[in-house]
Amino acid sequence: MFECVPNVSEGRDASTIDAIAEAVRGTPGVHLLNLHSDPDHNRSVFTYISESAEQIAEATYRLFATALPRIDLRIHHGAHPRVGAVDVVPFVPLEGTTMAACVEVAERVGEELARRHDLPIYLYEHAARHEYRRELPVIRSGGFEQFPTKITDERWTPDFGPSVVHPTAGVSIVGARVPLIAFNMQLGTDRVEVAQACARAVRGISGGLRYVRALPIELKSKGLVQVSMNLLDHRRTPIQRAFALVKEEAERYGVAVVSSEIVGLVPAAAMYEVAEWYLRIGGWRREMVLEEKIRLATRDTSG
Amino acid sequence: MFECVPNVSEGRDASTIDAIAEAVRGTPGVHLLNLHSDPDHNRSVFTYISESAEQIAEATYRLFATALPRIDLRIHHGAHPRVGAVDVVPFVPLEGTTMAACVEVAERVGEELARRHDLPIYLYEHAARHEYRRELPVIRSGGFEQFPTKITDERWTPDFGPSVVHPTAGVSIVGARVPLIAFNMQLGTDRVEVAQACARAVRGISGGLRYVRALPIELKSKGLVQVSMNLLDHRRTPIQRAFALVKEEAERYGVAVVSSEIVGLVPAAAMYEVAEWYLRIGGWRREMVLEEKIRLATRDTSG
Repeated sequence: MFECVPNVSEGRDASTIDAIAEAVRGTPGVHLLNLHSDPDHNRSVFTYISESAEQIAEATYRLFATALPRIDLRIHHGAHPRVGAVDVVPFVPLEGTTMAACVEVAERVGEELARRHDLPIYLYEHAARHEYRRELPVIRSGGFEQFPTKITDERWTPDFGPSVVHPTAGVSIVGARVPLIAFNMQLGTDRVEVAQACARAVRGISGGLRYVRALPIELKSKGLVQVSMNLLDHRRTPIQRAFALVKEEAERYGVAVVSSEIVGLVPAAAMYEVAEWYLRIGGWRREMVLEEKIRLATRDTSG
Repeated sequence: MFECVPNVSEGRDASTIDAIAEAVRGTPGVHLLNLHSDPDHNRSVFTYISESAEQIAEATYRLFATALPRIDLRIHHGAHPRVGAVDVVPFVPLEGTTMAACVEVAERVGEELARRHDLPIYLYEHAARHEYRRELPVIRSGGFEQFPTKITDERWTPDFGPSVVHPTAGVSIVGARVPLIAFNMQLGTDRVEVAQACARAVRGISGGLRYVRALPIELKSKGLVQVSMNLLDHRRTPIQRAFALVKEEAERYGVAVVSSEIVGLVPAAAMYEVAEWYLRIGGWRREMVLEEKIRLATRDTSG
């Protein structure tokens, strides 16, 4: 099973978001599992799966063909950093697929998108062709507004497509990565410096947790601020640890955690682990869950 | 799908426990999902399922036929209250079965067990024939040792079988109930009065949480005490609420929660709810879990 989780730079206009969702849904053999739009981020995250590399690629072509004519980054404003109308397109191996297969899809799709739309494409994470271009934040730094200069630097020649930023669509970042959890925490203040302090405390790059990326974001429509996180490996840095650290840091400023948010989907194992940790369950195993156990037991006999 | 969760009064002798497990496993169409034995309780909980009422009944007959010759309650000691060698036999409706169907199985199995083993049988919970005999603790009060007197009271005439306690197997309680979660918390003390105070605080009958039953138990082999709970309706009284209340009460005595324990199996929804609660996830839905969503999406197309 292949999973694809494109992040598209439109989180407000329902007609555009719907049109993109329909394009994905209309692709044979593809299931749109989730759509998460955020008006403050001005960004939507689509999650779809397919058993077939060809079909997941086709859904992605249709997504671009629908999104690109409808999104103009020159007039796009949002709290989340971005370089592209379709900003980032990760392919993720689920059960029965390998990372190598996802890298192959990312390369094929990246090349084809560059050709069809005259769009600069950067390969990232497991698909990266240069070590210094592996991590998303490095490629995205400067944003759409700075990219016309950045792209002329030969270290930033795209992997596919022209060395000229697309006037309305910017550049797109395509790659393959392990499943990650997009996890946001809303803080009960409008002081963005509190979210900044929490993001700095929790993210690996500034001394926090190894597998956490974090950004401070203002949620103007809610009068709150947000710590927007990517948990890159929940087995080694579980959700509850990131949560505890941000909660603790916010408290130091007299600020409470109002709520948290899963963007897209979360693996069951990550949720079980949170529950197990808080309840201090000894010797926890996934097979303690009734439905998991039934699935294993009934699979045993059928083959 | 029918589930059956017999509690057997043997938690130490591996050969007896294994023989019973083998008897269940050997029944066609039945899956033994879980076996949990506790030496301090001197009790084992078997969890098995079947699509067929006949087959789940057959597994239960085999369980009794194997357990009864091997267990002598006259020489049985354990920290958990009991009245029978096979103490209590609940049938539970899972997806695709009704409570009414489980009541029917309980009645049929109860009658047949009484006939085969000359064993007094009490029907409880949804299968109960008298309102005052609906709840397990009421039927079990007095234990095996007091039952020879209790059974002569006409209010305690068994639903099936003789009005004489079986010399080695006592009496058995058979019925139908909703899925419950057997959840124990271990406290860092050997003072059983702390567990007693916590049990009193948390259980519905003494003023605590409506859908919680709780007993204090000494775990002599571990030098700890335990609050042994049944959570009868996790949708209305979720695990984290019982956990928080016991933790708070234990702290008042300067005692910490060392660990907790799931006996048998726990529904996935109950684990998700614990995680959601601690993380304060807004608008949580089960479909936010990747595997749940994939299951729904792929089920949609197949039929």
